[in-house]
Amino acid sequence: MFSKETYQNRRTALKKAVGSGLLLFLGNDDYGLNYEDNAFRYRQDSTFLYYFGLAYAGLSAIIDIDNDVEIIFGNELTIDDIVWMGMQPTLKEKGNSVGISEIRPLSQIENYLSQASSKGQKIHYLPPYRAEHKLKLFTWLNIKPGTEQPSIPFIRSVVAQRSYKSEEEIAEIEKACNTTADMHLTAIRMVRPGMRENDIVAAVTEVALAAGGDLSFPIIGTINGQTLHNHHYGNIIKEGDLFLMDAGAETAMGYAGDATSTIPASSHYSTHQKEIYDIVVNSHLTAAAALRPGVPFSDLYDLSAQVIVEGLKELGFMRGDAAEAVQVGAHALFYPHGLGHMMGLDVHDMENLGEIWVGYDGQPKSTQFGRKSLRLARPLEPGFVLTIEPGIYFIPELIDMWRAEKRFEEFINYEKVATYKNFGGIRNEEDYLITAEGGRRLGKAIPKTTEEIEALR
Amino acid sequence: MFSKETYQNRRTALKKAVGSGLLLFLGNDDYGLNYEDNAFRYRQDSTFLYYFGLAYAGLSAIIDIDNDVEIIFGNELTIDDIVWMGMQPTLKEKGNSVGISEIRPLSQIENYLSQASSKGQKIHYLPPYRAEHKLKLFTWLNIKPGTEQPSIPFIRSVVAQRSYKSEEEIAEIEKACNTTADMHLTAIRMVRPGMRENDIVAAVTEVALAAGGDLSFPIIGTINGQTLHNHHYGNIIKEGDLFLMDAGAETAMGYAGDATSTIPASSHYSTHQKEIYDIVVNSHLTAAAALRPGVPFSDLYDLSAQVIVEGLKELGFMRGDAAEAVQVGAHALFYPHGLGHMMGLDVHDMENLGEIWVGYDGQPKSTQFGRKSLRLARPLEPGFVLTIEPGIYFIPELIDMWRAEKRFEEFINYEKVATYKNFGGIRNEEDYLITAEGGRRLGKAIPKTTEEIEALR
Repeated sequence: MFSKETYQNRRTALKKAVGSGLLLFLGNDDYGLNYEDNAFRYRQDSTFLYYFGLAYAGLSAIIDIDNDVEIIFGNELTIDDIVWMGMQPTLKEKGNSVGISEIRPLSQIENYLSQASSKGQKIHYLPPYRAEHKLKLFTWLNIKPGTEQPSIPFIRSVVAQRSYKSEEEIAEIEKACNTTADMHLTAIRMVRPGMRENDIVAAVTEVALAAGGDLSFPIIGTINGQTLHNHHYGNIIKEGDLFLMDAGAETAMGYAGDATSTIPASSHYSTHQKEIYDIVVNSHLTAAAALRPGVPFSDLYDLSAQVIVEGLKELGFMRGDAAEAVQVGAHALFYPHGLGHMMGLDVHDMENLGEIWVGYDGQPKSTQFGRKSLRLARPLEPGFVLTIEPGIYFIPELIDMWRAEKRFEEFINYEKVATYKNFGGIRNEEDYLITAEGGRRLGKAIPKTTEEIEALR
Repeated sequence: MFSKETYQNRRTALKKAVGSGLLLFLGNDDYGLNYEDNAFRYRQDSTFLYYFGLAYAGLSAIIDIDNDVEIIFGNELTIDDIVWMGMQPTLKEKGNSVGISEIRPLSQIENYLSQASSKGQKIHYLPPYRAEHKLKLFTWLNIKPGTEQPSIPFIRSVVAQRSYKSEEEIAEIEKACNTTADMHLTAIRMVRPGMRENDIVAAVTEVALAAGGDLSFPIIGTINGQTLHNHHYGNIIKEGDLFLMDAGAETAMGYAGDATSTIPASSHYSTHQKEIYDIVVNSHLTAAAALRPGVPFSDLYDLSAQVIVEGLKELGFMRGDAAEAVQVGAHALFYPHGLGHMMGLDVHDMENLGEIWVGYDGQPKSTQFGRKSLRLARPLEPGFVLTIEPGIYFIPELIDMWRAEKRFEEFINYEKVATYKNFGGIRNEEDYLITAEGGRRLGKAIPKTTEEIEALR
């Protein structure tokens, strides 16, 4: 946990930003896999963590701006709790550690909220992303599930704070990035033909757990890298395959790392693999070198996509003007996702608050295939932490669909593309901080070029 | 997955058992850690798995007994789903694989239920254990959260089937137990002073994942074994500590294993540790040897507790008549939990359906401290799978509380007990099948005696 003052200062700034009303923070509860008491690993809501620092189930909090009161609602431990779960600081002590002196039983929150409502106070809450949040809003505020109206001023004020990482946050993120690098080094050294995908996933998970935290998201570890969010690990890795791994660590305090490597199952990349791989690395390095305050991230997306189109033109997969191809979205056959996203207490930072506020500053988003998956477009500012993660994929179903529709034939050489339908996919990804001068990679370097990776095989 | 006929036969038997009405099966959805799309690993509801076999998010099912119709409700994949999640069999194909030919879009379930309701059909559902279940019952049936009335006939019919494991289920459980044994062997060989608890937890998790499944419950891996459900792994293991690990594997099909070992951090158990350890093993083996059809599991709990009291009497911690001590609950200072529980698709099998139906066949439960934690009491029958897991713990807070209250002074020598307040806790656990003749341990033997464990250190 950070010092008491960190949390106090964050709350003070938030109160000032929203100005009036009552802010309701819904902490996360435990959640059962297959019955109530067999819970998934506990994960506190990130905004709750940011302002209150306490990673325990069963808490909610109110900042009553109008009456200048901050309260944590939760229940003290019973002797049965102690027998089953051990001694812990009391809730009173936990509250004190983050500068909150007022603790009340959870049963009192409904009454507090209904009194505030009846006095005409505005009750602000954030978008519910778990069913349990919706149930609480229904139980406490009689808001019918599906009709919630999250507070835009609350959302914007939180985004305005959490987007700028402090020194102590950057140090935590760098810890996460270092563990993430160790996870990737483990995989780069380990992958061999004959192994199953889950042998690698298991070993990489061990690295994250042994570092004292957990995974920041479910690992993608697959010989089918063309499937973007593949969480199946049942395949045997064969000679000639590319093993794509997108994996990151979360620190005990909840900060995320996020990186992707594409590793040859054989000791070396084939010539065809190297040709495509080099384009992806070039796209990555070009975008990373262009990071600086004031540049809209959407421009870097265009840049990364143009590098990919130029590379694919040289190999005969594409043709025509690269800038034009990117503008109409022809590149998205090969590169159907965004360039990156904010990262912090969430791997897609603040995604629960709405991409439009986090990545677009309230501006409208493109609906074009590929570009619509860009999570971050706004001009960069010092203190932003983000990922760079371009990729090239050959997705058989998408190729067949586009080809049948004769989509972008002026830019795409479908005859050549068809010969690569079994190629798979390549992505590489690292994490960057925007500084006053440009971008700084966070954490240890992960081997990225074919030469660097082959040297470890 | 088992054969289509397995699922068809299970559903046929269930329809016959419940007799009439409409059975609603709420499949589990994905659940976000910190935003909607960053989901915990997916786990289907076990009853849904038992009757429909499909482990995919977004499904619900209806067995309309009155009209002899079986329907799975869910949505087919879009091209965006395929790009992000890869090709899968269609829902139609998935349905066919478990003998269901009728697939409808999820949006139609509400209408089906309201028509059934308006025709006066009884709608049976099981206890909701996730917030998402409560939201569905509210949205589809207008049942206010907290006022659900699960169907007793549905519960009892499911328990009556799932309690008796078939040959093919036993083979799956044995797979889970074998991986579980490998997890424990890994820990028994690995624990050393200077390691952190999470070094062991990480390595043991890797074994479960590499076997192609996952953990069946969050690992307890701690030098504070006296804390029964300890999920903190931050301590350094010191010379002389006991490392208690309660951990099990889940197979890809969802079947669980569950075992506990207590490993000396040093190469050997100390004399004091061995004295307590031997009582626990004796209690375990005595209960296991007494397993046979017709014996109430509550009798075996009494037996296991009496062995513990006799042992503690010999060491001077307890005194008086052992049977009497167990009857009044004096043993629960040291042994505050049950002897074991049913195991199958859930590690505490069917716990979401209610302990009273699963473990007590509808009979009332004791409220006595210790005995109230016994999850299984009913007479054993061939086909039951259960755990045996006695333990002895020195829980400082509990000792202080009971001593202050002078509780059971005729049975407990508090002066001697007070000298062991830093001892920790010991438990050992394996899994058994009830056969026509008695009990059969499932899976490979896990080293259990001090000699067996020390031989591996």
